Amino acid sequence: MTPPVATPEKVVKVPGNTLLTATPEEGRALAFELAYRSVQVIQPDPAALDRGRPVYANDPAALIAASQVVATEFATIAAANNYWRP
Amino acid sequence: MTPPVATPEKVVKVPGNTLLTATPEEGRALAFELAYRSVQVIQPDPAALDRGRPVYANDPAALIAASQVVATEFATIAAANNYWRP
Amino acid sequence: MTPPVATPEKVVKVPGNTLLTATPEEGRALAFELAYRSVQVIQPDPAALDRGRPVYANDPAALIAASQVVATEFATIAAANNYWRP
Amino acid sequence: MTPPVATPEKVVKVPGNTLLTATPEEGRALAFELAYRSVQVIQPDPAALDRGRPVYANDPAALIAASQVVATEFATIAAANNYWRP
Amino acid sequence: MTPPVATPEKVVKVPGNTLLTATPEEGRALAFELAYRSVQVIQPDPAALDRGRPVYANDPAALIAASQVVATEFATIAAANNYWRP
Amino acid sequence: MTPPVATPEKVVKVPGNTLLTATPEEGRALAFELAYRSVQVIQPDPAALDRGRPVYANDPAALIAASQVVATEFATIAAANNYWRP
Repeated sequence: MTPPVATPEKVVKVPGNTLLTATPEEGRALAFELAYRSVQVIQPDPAALDRGRPVYANDPAALIAASQVVATEFATIAAANNYWRP
Repeated sequence: MTPPVATPEKVVKVPGNTLLTATPEEGRALAFELAYRSVQVIQPDPAALDRGRPVYANDPAALIAASQVVATEFATIAAANNYWRP
Repeated sequence: MTPPVATPEKVVKVPGNTLLTATPEEGRALAFELAYRSVQVIQPDPAALDRGRPVYANDPAALIAASQVVATEFATIAAANNYWRP
Repeated sequence: MTPPVATPEKVVKVPGNTLLTATPEEGRALAFELAYRSVQVIQPDPAALDRGRPVYANDPAALIAASQVVATEFATIAAANNYWRP
Repeated sequence: MTPPVATPEKVVKVPGNTLLTATPEEGRALAFELAYRSVQVIQPDPAALDRGRPVYANDPAALIAASQVVATEFATIAAANNYWRP
Repeated sequence: MTPPVATPEKVVKVPGNTLLTATPEEGRALAFELAYRSVQVIQPDPAALDRGRPVYANDPAALIAASQVVATEFATIAAANNYWRP
């Protein structure tokens, strides 16, 4: 992956700048956000992303691969929150 | 992955909003649920998912990739439950 | 992955309902079982699985991907058993 | 992955039935063994494996995927040996 | 992967030679840097990378795979920083 | 993956037979070495590797997959070195 023309500083990569969330549900939402924003950092052109949306969103293999990214991000967030153990 | 039109808040991403389960079997079921719901968050259109079902469910490579997602989710859930050690 | 018609409750996802095994060899066998059963949960139709068997079993890329699932499951089981350290 | 006709009990999945090795080099060799044997458990037919050998061994994508399996197995073995720290 | 003609010593693989960052946002940026630089180490020819850029940046599957690399690097960086827990 | 004719004992899989390095940069270099050597163990024929080099080095998907291997190896090496925390 070559960086785009310049690392797109403007994309906030970690909303809230923390991995700590109150609940697993919030942690899961954060995992999705990290994954979405990764793509936006790598491909900052919204039009390119819009062209890609119908392609991957209707491709089971891509949906599964995207779920793998979410699962990996969630593993990190869950560990960060000590698995929201009481 | 660009988010769908709006992050589908209505999909509950973590049923029960906890990673803690009584047994490995329940933990495994939760891992499947997290994986299923990831796809539903990324592609909220049930019709699109229904079209995809026969494609991936009869494609060994997709079944294996889906199993990889479950394995990754389960690793997180198992750690959360301290591997259900007595 | 949309769930099959209904999550196939009948498939026992974690044989013995424990991740604890006496030896690494047993732990490895359990990792294979978890991986096999994942596919059976996602695709409960035995005929579909039988059709897929000769496809993936003679496809090096699929065999390697399946080995990746086993490696990921085994990582979880090994951690659960504290790596069977004496 | 449907299991082959019967889980091939005869394949020893973890040579020596331990993850503990004296050195990283031995641990790395064990990681390769676990990966090789995974394929042999999933596809016990030597002739099928021999047919696949020239395919994957000359396919960079398959070689890279196989390296990923080794890296994942090694992560488990390294953790088991506490990274061979003095 | 055979190494390029010679491991390109000149590419700094870990900017700042540390995994420790002040915040998750900085940690995330480092994860992107590690991923970008991996590609530059494996393929040191800028022209080849420039040719590849429009290919992967408009290919949802490649964008997702790249996000997987970032997620894996971030998991390491987050653990290094003890998840930036207060 | 069936092993090559004989596991190529001659390839040193872990240069220096240790995962411990002085700095993250050295740890990163070791991660690349482990990944390169994995391919050399699986495919010991230099001519085959040379044929593969231009294929994967100009294929973004393969470069990304190779980066994933490096990221996984680095995660192990970073943990081995306790993330080079002061």
